[in-house]
Amino acid sequence: MPENYKLTYFNMKGMGEPARLIFAYAGVEYEDNRIERPDWPALKKNFPWGQLPVLQVGDRILSQSNAICRYLGQKFNLNGRDDWESAKIDELADALADFRKEIMTIHGDSAEKDETKKAALTANFIGNTVPRFFGNMESAIAKNGDSPYLVGKNLTWVDLQMAHFLDMFDAMIPNVLDTFPKLRKLKQNVFKIPSIAQWIEKRPKTAF
Amino acid sequence: MPENYKLTYFNMKGMGEPARLIFAYAGVEYEDNRIERPDWPALKKNFPWGQLPVLQVGDRILSQSNAICRYLGQKFNLNGRDDWESAKIDELADALADFRKEIMTIHGDSAEKDETKKAALTANFIGNTVPRFFGNMESAIAKNGDSPYLVGKNLTWVDLQMAHFLDMFDAMIPNVLDTFPKLRKLKQNVFKIPSIAQWIEKRPKTAF
Ligand SMILES: N[C@@H](CCC(=O)N[C@@H](CS)C(=O)NCC(=O)O)C(=O)O
Ligand SMILES: N[C@@H](CCC(=O)N[C@@H](CS)C(=O)NCC(=O)O)C(=O)O
Repeated sequence: MPENYKLTYFNMKGMGEPARLIFAYAGVEYEDNRIERPDWPALKKNFPWGQLPVLQVGDRILSQSNAICRYLGQKFNLNGRDDWESAKIDELADALADFRKEIMTIHGDSAEKDETKKAALTANFIGNTVPRFFGNMESAIAKNGDSPYLVGKNLTWVDLQMAHFLDMFDAMIPNVLDTFPKLRKLKQNVFKIPSIAQWIEKRPKTAF
Repeated sequence: MPENYKLTYFNMKGMGEPARLIFAYAGVEYEDNRIERPDWPALKKNFPWGQLPVLQVGDRILSQSNAICRYLGQKFNLNGRDDWESAKIDELADALADFRKEIMTIHGDSAEKDETKKAALTANFIGNTVPRFFGNMESAIAKNGDSPYLVGKNLTWVDLQMAHFLDMFDAMIPNVLDTFPKLRKLKQNVFKIPSIAQWIEKRPKTAF
């Protein structure tokens, strides 16, 4: 019996899209449950952590976007070839989470309101965080020789996750991918995988 | 040949201690490399992400505290009985990371400076975040019936991590464990495991 999967997130890409990309790549059916923002306050209490995404597998539920991606990655053979590769995948996913946390201090609703402080945060972000983060990701790919992926010789769940967020960052940080050609290539490679391209074509069009 | 492990962190408990507890529990030798804060600015550039903890295994290095704990947990049989248990461990560890992030907005060096804002953050933290977080952790334990652990019937790496951070929170949030007896019990159970008790006895005494 195939598992019964339901992924609940808002009607946006955000932190839910990496799991959707994993399902698309693996060719596995799931219910893509999308909550509209106005409906959320009434629904929030139904979710143990009061946050999304949440994955339902049969009658069991799992929260936390990275826990969800790792679980699906493990199930669908996208979690690296051995424990060390899995650990490096986890490292990059958590580094990406740190990076996203920092970008949120200067972009979007929760950005710093004080303009002077925001300017300082932005300068540090552009001068230090961006080159370190993108540079380390490029080095990770460079280490794999001919393979264009982040960890080892094969595509893993963190490549799908990274391609999605690179697409977001590309819109937020002007020209950022110009100086990181391996990352641009990673995004292009992932987005042209037939199952992924098909999903991108048919997914609901949302800004974020 | 046993692996050669070296864990580098600051001379404090903080985000490095969970990995040290895993080593202590597993009875595995490692180099407990502690950097003093004044030496850090000169050393920071030697670490790819410019942050600690970092685990060295032979000549390979791994960053991100949760990636390190999960890798060691996997090696030392502390990562749950099946993929679902591993996923629930990951969920709790990431929920704990979110909680710690929030506590840092009202405690310590990076706390909000504006007193009015800080009061609002504190009220939300005490009124909403604490009961949800501690409540969910209690429910996780309650689900396991006779077992006093967070996930399944056996001790896992997230129990060691949680016991350590509960010890920190206990000092930061007055009387918090009074209303969460299963969490107090978890901390006590972990701290009285002979290998852990021995480590706590002999570890360098630091405030955090
Ligand atoms: N660490 C969590 C964070 C989840 C999170 O921040 N979810 C946001 C949407 S991206 C949310 O549910 N916000 C609504 C709310 O907090 O009420 C994860 O990775 O899943
Ligand atoms: N997400 C990372 C965060 C690591 C982190 O914040 N490390 C701090 C110490 S707890 C650090 O290295 N600070 C020194 C610095 O940033 O220069 C992890 O979980 O390992």
